[in-house]
Amino acid sequence: MNVEILAVGTELLLGNTVNTDAADLSDRLAALGLNVFWHTVVGDNPGRLSDAVSIARARADIIITTGGLGPTYDDLTKNVLADCFGKKLVFHEEEADFLRRFYERRGRPMTENVLQQAWLPEGCQVFHNDWGTAPGCAFEAEGVHVVMLPGPPYECLPMFDHCAVPYLRLLSGETLVSRQIHVFGLGESDIEARFREEMEHMANPSLATYAKEGEVMLRVTAKAPTEAEAAALCEPVVEKVRKALGSYVYSVDIDSLEALVLKLLKEKQLTFAAAESLTGGLIGARFTALSGASAVFRGGAVTYCDEVKAGMLGIDAGLIAEKHAVSREVAAAMAQGVRKAAGADLGVSATGIAGPDTDESGQPVGTVFVGLAAADGVWVRHLTLGSRGRDRIRTISASNAFDMLRRYLTDLPVTEE
Amino acid sequence: MNVEILAVGTELLLGNTVNTDAADLSDRLAALGLNVFWHTVVGDNPGRLSDAVSIARARADIIITTGGLGPTYDDLTKNVLADCFGKKLVFHEEEADFLRRFYERRGRPMTENVLQQAWLPEGCQVFHNDWGTAPGCAFEAEGVHVVMLPGPPYECLPMFDHCAVPYLRLLSGETLVSRQIHVFGLGESDIEARFREEMEHMANPSLATYAKEGEVMLRVTAKAPTEAEAAALCEPVVEKVRKALGSYVYSVDIDSLEALVLKLLKEKQLTFAAAESLTGGLIGARFTALSGASAVFRGGAVTYCDEVKAGMLGIDAGLIAEKHAVSREVAAAMAQGVRKAAGADLGVSATGIAGPDTDESGQPVGTVFVGLAAADGVWVRHLTLGSRGRDRIRTISASNAFDMLRRYLTDLPVTEE
Repeated sequence: MNVEILAVGTELLLGNTVNTDAADLSDRLAALGLNVFWHTVVGDNPGRLSDAVSIARARADIIITTGGLGPTYDDLTKNVLADCFGKKLVFHEEEADFLRRFYERRGRPMTENVLQQAWLPEGCQVFHNDWGTAPGCAFEAEGVHVVMLPGPPYECLPMFDHCAVPYLRLLSGETLVSRQIHVFGLGESDIEARFREEMEHMANPSLATYAKEGEVMLRVTAKAPTEAEAAALCEPVVEKVRKALGSYVYSVDIDSLEALVLKLLKEKQLTFAAAESLTGGLIGARFTALSGASAVFRGGAVTYCDEVKAGMLGIDAGLIAEKHAVSREVAAAMAQGVRKAAGADLGVSATGIAGPDTDESGQPVGTVFVGLAAADGVWVRHLTLGSRGRDRIRTISASNAFDMLRRYLTDLPVTEE
Repeated sequence: MNVEILAVGTELLLGNTVNTDAADLSDRLAALGLNVFWHTVVGDNPGRLSDAVSIARARADIIITTGGLGPTYDDLTKNVLADCFGKKLVFHEEEADFLRRFYERRGRPMTENVLQQAWLPEGCQVFHNDWGTAPGCAFEAEGVHVVMLPGPPYECLPMFDHCAVPYLRLLSGETLVSRQIHVFGLGESDIEARFREEMEHMANPSLATYAKEGEVMLRVTAKAPTEAEAAALCEPVVEKVRKALGSYVYSVDIDSLEALVLKLLKEKQLTFAAAESLTGGLIGARFTALSGASAVFRGGAVTYCDEVKAGMLGIDAGLIAEKHAVSREVAAAMAQGVRKAAGADLGVSATGIAGPDTDESGQPVGTVFVGLAAADGVWVRHLTLGSRGRDRIRTISASNAFDMLRRYLTDLPVTEE
């Protein structure tokens, strides 16, 4: 069965909001064996929304809308969809009650527009919103299934998982299994050139490459009547790719370097700390976005000026003056310093020039040193990332710190030098 | 003139990649006075891409494609678009030379597929790619303008700015001016209820509200023959909103709390430092994403365990034992401690329970204390953010730290208590 995700919201067309819902729902729909073939975004405009629904119903079996269910005057999704499929909106007293209680509990007066959310298409299955206020719903009409979800991701995604998944599971016949092979340190063209010929001829399973933020992901996808059969189809391809790419493959199905590092540190009961200059807290922020991080992450220092490097990490000010803050020696001293200061088993560090301008050392933008210190040694990677933009330079630097950790923790050489 | 952004890439439909290009291009197109009415995503499938082009050319004056220009076998955008508009692909020797030199300079062998990128639709304006390899292009056919850009954002956006903008400027007759009013500390429904009636009746300028990550943005948009006229139409609405919402408005046209804080700190020549527990580096990471951050940000400590709070910030271990790490007192001590340890004028702190589970104190998930220390006092906000998910709790906590800084720096009360 084919799916179209139809997002409704002028804020998306003005670029104020990124359509993350479409990506997050697509990922979940693939796991259900449902093919997402189209994403569409239209504004809060009844005419254009109605046209988009006409196009969608002609090509998709399932239309999932996001957005436009709220209390404001431009929340039109229910009205337009009900109209397109010849359904009336019906007032749901129990949803209205929930809304009244919601405001009462918060001690806030309920404006009249709030109750607009309790009107839903006749005969629909109501998706009660435990994460916000606007309910969603699902109905079938003229051979098309319509699922309506709120726009904010923290409402849309849990409602999908808890309410829409049970509804959709009944519709999907085949099972699709995807395995994701994550690679750090090789470029997409290099990888694709190795597998190109096979990729062109493979249908089930299929193999595709995706580049993102300095990494490459290969996805092996197979379809079969059962999950076990689909998984068995994937296996030989996964093994072949693993063998071909060796230690550049950092994981299968663990979707980030930091998630792998968290798993490895927990297994080995080791801790780490970070000393961050150019990344400014990004290593810590990425790692602590994972729940369970506190078991292995001690914290660290954000050393955005030389005095803090000296003060918090005990780095010799003379060393900084002599070698410069962006240097192999200072990266090593930062990793060793934070390891000691935070009482961690391992210390990582990142210092460099994120741009747009170089600093007084005159080294080019994109010059970065990433360090790792352990009881048995200290390693530093020297990266030359060029003018790829501040965000990318910082992201790739943080990823290198995690890559050094995972290599150390799996007994691989930490640096290539 | 109306625009459709047509993204091509199966990775978008599988949810591996978020379509940030569509948002970033939309934002830029609005500034050019071009209305984006549709975003569409299709996979790397010639039939469905061709269908999508048929739909787009019937409703849009300008089609902007992203993705599918690269060297791999599923990069089909140029072939399909050329075909749809009855154009041949022509080999561009100067682009081929550039590709050969690109690989030569890097000392990497060039695989044959790379040269696929040098084939472009006949008669097009070539957009040379200074940020990657695949060139983009633009052409007009049968009354529709087609602009093709690469998919990776670090290629797509600079190519848009440098190559597509000059092309598009010639097409747009009217100028559109948007003013963005940024609000922190009020909910979207509250704000909308105040302005609902006017919003329904306003056309030029228009007023709309957008909620994101604990903030609300109101956008005032006006169209006129000249920029000055459009700006003059916006002005009275901006003033009215500012007056109605008072100090909850943190800026007009400065698009984040941290960007405003950077500006204010520079003006006052003050510095700050951060002590982060539950945010784990996020305050620092957000702030140092801004270029120029190093002038006012000293760094700080990521105190993800009690020993680091004591060791790096000199917080009395007895205080932590008595009051608990997630407490008003510890937040205050962290802010004061980091201010001193980093030698900054101001110190901020965040400690709390991001979940999914509570800690040994038994306080509910979402309990957060955010602190600010200055020479003339120390303030703490106590937030109860409920179970909104780890990411949101951390983001809103970091935003509160920036909000306290901006209030302090503009002589407003730092806390409501």
